[in-house]
Amino acid sequence: MSENQFDVIVIGGGISGLTAAYTVRKRMPHARVVVLEGKDRVGGRTLTVPLVGSSGVDNWDLGGQWVGTDQRHVMQLLSELGLDTYPQFSVGEKLQRLGGSKVTSYSSDIPSLSFWALIDLYWHMAKTDGYQRELDPLDPFSHPKAKEWDAMTIGGFLDQTIYTQGARDAVEAAVRVVLGCEPNQVSFLFYLVYVHLAGGLQKLLEQKDGAAQELKIKGGAQRISLELATSLGADAVKLGDPVRSVDQTDDAVKVITQSGWQASSSYVIVATPPKAMEHMTFTPELSSLRRSLMKFMPMGSLTKVILTYETAFWRDAGLSGEVVSNGGGPVLTLCPTGPICLTYDATTEKGSPALVAFLGGNLAVAYASVTAKQRQEAVLEHLGVFFGPQVRKFLDYAEKDWNLEPFSFGSPVAFLSPGGMDVFTATVRKPEGRLHFAGTETATVWSGYMSGAVQAGEASALAVLHRLDPSYLSMDDLETIVPFLAQDHQAGGDRNGTVGSPVMKHARKQSGPFWWVVSTALGVGLVLGAVYLANHALKSPDLELS
Amino acid sequence: MSENQFDVIVIGGGISGLTAAYTVRKRMPHARVVVLEGKDRVGGRTLTVPLVGSSGVDNWDLGGQWVGTDQRHVMQLLSELGLDTYPQFSVGEKLQRLGGSKVTSYSSDIPSLSFWALIDLYWHMAKTDGYQRELDPLDPFSHPKAKEWDAMTIGGFLDQTIYTQGARDAVEAAVRVVLGCEPNQVSFLFYLVYVHLAGGLQKLLEQKDGAAQELKIKGGAQRISLELATSLGADAVKLGDPVRSVDQTDDAVKVITQSGWQASSSYVIVATPPKAMEHMTFTPELSSLRRSLMKFMPMGSLTKVILTYETAFWRDAGLSGEVVSNGGGPVLTLCPTGPICLTYDATTEKGSPALVAFLGGNLAVAYASVTAKQRQEAVLEHLGVFFGPQVRKFLDYAEKDWNLEPFSFGSPVAFLSPGGMDVFTATVRKPEGRLHFAGTETATVWSGYMSGAVQAGEASALAVLHRLDPSYLSMDDLETIVPFLAQDHQAGGDRNGTVGSPVMKHARKQSGPFWWVVSTALGVGLVLGAVYLANHALKSPDLELS
Repeated sequence: MSENQFDVIVIGGGISGLTAAYTVRKRMPHARVVVLEGKDRVGGRTLTVPLVGSSGVDNWDLGGQWVGTDQRHVMQLLSELGLDTYPQFSVGEKLQRLGGSKVTSYSSDIPSLSFWALIDLYWHMAKTDGYQRELDPLDPFSHPKAKEWDAMTIGGFLDQTIYTQGARDAVEAAVRVVLGCEPNQVSFLFYLVYVHLAGGLQKLLEQKDGAAQELKIKGGAQRISLELATSLGADAVKLGDPVRSVDQTDDAVKVITQSGWQASSSYVIVATPPKAMEHMTFTPELSSLRRSLMKFMPMGSLTKVILTYETAFWRDAGLSGEVVSNGGGPVLTLCPTGPICLTYDATTEKGSPALVAFLGGNLAVAYASVTAKQRQEAVLEHLGVFFGPQVRKFLDYAEKDWNLEPFSFGSPVAFLSPGGMDVFTATVRKPEGRLHFAGTETATVWSGYMSGAVQAGEASALAVLHRLDPSYLSMDDLETIVPFLAQDHQAGGDRNGTVGSPVMKHARKQSGPFWWVVSTALGVGLVLGAVYLANHALKSPDLELS
Repeated sequence: MSENQFDVIVIGGGISGLTAAYTVRKRMPHARVVVLEGKDRVGGRTLTVPLVGSSGVDNWDLGGQWVGTDQRHVMQLLSELGLDTYPQFSVGEKLQRLGGSKVTSYSSDIPSLSFWALIDLYWHMAKTDGYQRELDPLDPFSHPKAKEWDAMTIGGFLDQTIYTQGARDAVEAAVRVVLGCEPNQVSFLFYLVYVHLAGGLQKLLEQKDGAAQELKIKGGAQRISLELATSLGADAVKLGDPVRSVDQTDDAVKVITQSGWQASSSYVIVATPPKAMEHMTFTPELSSLRRSLMKFMPMGSLTKVILTYETAFWRDAGLSGEVVSNGGGPVLTLCPTGPICLTYDATTEKGSPALVAFLGGNLAVAYASVTAKQRQEAVLEHLGVFFGPQVRKFLDYAEKDWNLEPFSFGSPVAFLSPGGMDVFTATVRKPEGRLHFAGTETATVWSGYMSGAVQAGEASALAVLHRLDPSYLSMDDLETIVPFLAQDHQAGGDRNGTVGSPVMKHARKQSGPFWWVVSTALGVGLVLGAVYLANHALKSPDLELS
């Protein structure tokens, strides 16, 4: 039994769990650490697969793939692991089909509607960005409108604030890919917090200047996990054997896997999607708040398709490979819209041309109900609208419906249904006895992204190290781990009505005139922006993911 | 193996599953039927327990307990099973603490605020009732505002339409008990459909004239399931062995339980809460729509407390035992409000005095995070505010947190987070191959109630019989089972924006003037109602659950 005695057991062999184990080992080299994973591979929601490309077999990502220079946690880790990046290709025109069935590029044939839709979209984005900036992401209910925002969905916010179908389509397409859900399924407050943790909408949606779609990882994103696992050593990562029970006593935690393998440790880091905890038995039972959180934190639905080609024919046509679409017209009898929300150039660092297409939210769900052949036909038909018949001459084709992935339960991230943010805030990263929590959903920087997975993995590891022996930590570390140690019990806070504590009432009073100023400023900005856009023929609006 | 060959296997031994098996057997006496249940008892979300009462041990319900004469499906079944009912006691004054810390009864000391709150509440209820009446519950998206309503929560609707804290508190208390969640957690469209299926708000909230809290069952509500199980015979109900896998082939379904027991059948009726399906493996995988549905259909949180007494001291004080409260002031440091949303007289048919108290939504969650002793202290403290120190002199005390109940996952019902109603409508009762679905969540009359469980159980049984041999069914039966056989593929319907098909646009156009008329009528009604109320000293407003 003594060989199954550990300092730290990590549940979940994705980037977050592996980073947690790696961080413990880095700080405390003699630490006995093991990572337990249900899948027969590491990587969680990253998955790099070999496909036939123009110059033989090459690697493509069917899961998370992008990083950005602003994402310091993942960039630092990549550097430590000796992994290189290369920029997302973005030269050339982008295409869109929003607000109607017409395909438009950004330098020609702009229907008059699109102009207003663009204004509408800027206005919406400015408002959203203004709101998220006001929020304290770790204490969102200190904002006077937080309760109201958590009672509404992004869709409800659109119903109140957006006027053109084009702008609405753009936001819908963005939400489907960023969160894997429909705007009417997600708490508007959660969305604001999510955007805040990424540093704003531009960072979330763009490809440049450190934004979320700036860089790709040479060899594929799963290499992060593979390198981490190699660094930990084969004995420290146990695959294909999901944890079934986690029993805490006063001085240890005992973990039992499906195969009956048992181990005990001083601490456990649970680095799984929140939903995965519903499939383990905890003794004592997880807190009522955490169980409640799981009710309101479903995983997104995202299907990713890679198509490899002999040549990057879209580049030859002056296109970047980027498309934003809100379904468009039907291409299959069963489904009322086309499947694709977004495409990008997916050419590898070795120059193997490819496109990547995303089906998100209800589109991922609806197209999962037809056969693979029908789905492929719909994808090709839809891609053909933008890129012509050449899309059918692919060399290889791979798709991944993350809803069917065991132990992931969906992708790209777990989001919050309305009404759950108070419990989320109080609970998501709060330890329970000897259990600590990681996973990108718990991150306080770039939550939902690979960088968030790294940040949460590191922070939870440091929090555990702090309990094992505080001398391993620096003063800076202490600051990092505060949210991962304990928080105010927000969930016990105001939920009796619209109006909260005196502090909240005070803040609410002040928000009126403030918003008049902001609104006026936005209005002036819009007019100026409209003039600018008209003069510049709408060549490159600052909208990339949406 | 031949002894494990069935015509129908029913998964789930609650009222719905047992009724399904009973219905199959009633129509087709030689049918080989078995009911498989994970719990070691039948009854699902009903549970009758013996407690010490004034004249020895008597029975009380810790789960579903009420029926009403309008609930014809459960009333008919009770009659067939020879079970009797008795009326919910409701003589005397009712107490409330809404919109502040003051306790008020319905015939004295009405603060001026309460008058306006009452008007506000009537207005809200009239609007809600007007909306629900317009809906086709089986095709809610035929209503022009359905998409907007599914993008908002009840809380969002309150933010837009309710002006007094008192009225808001009343609605919150009602939602917490009726659905086990906070108003800001549930799709407003789902709520409207739910109300519609019960025949309106009055039916849902009241104690008389066929409403949901009209009658109790002699001996307790679990007797329905116990009698059904007896009627089926011991061999036909297998307890304490949850189903783990369900494999469909072209001509049969094979079911395997946790203990390794195997059986096959022509059809399977899954009569569990939707969530329970996440803990079984289906081959082929359940449809993507059903998996998506489960993401947006959490179970409510409801804790029920029974206190038995030597005498019904509240009756002696002229009180009915009914209290509606929205938390009120704190009674425990950890929790900002009192625990109780609602109490009723729970005196048995034998005359053993008792009170029943409900903790719903976030109150159930928050109070589950303290010890049982602290929770009891808070309940007693809170009850004492209304009924005085005598509440502490109970003979027996029992509580049930349904979130901790295995295979139930919560109570009283699974509800819809926003944005899931299109998938719900298309999926919840739609067969998948040889799998049929029951459970109160699938009911088309009184969904969420015991009567809905009966109705869905019967309808799913008839749908299966229809496939086994249509000659067992009458023409009336055929009408009943239509929603349980197939539906239009709603989930593939409009979700591209606010505006749907031409039909929906048309309906939207018409709704404007119509609503002006309704609003005006409501306004006139309100003034008249206010005058009436003022004249009648607000003695018995038509509000019982809220």
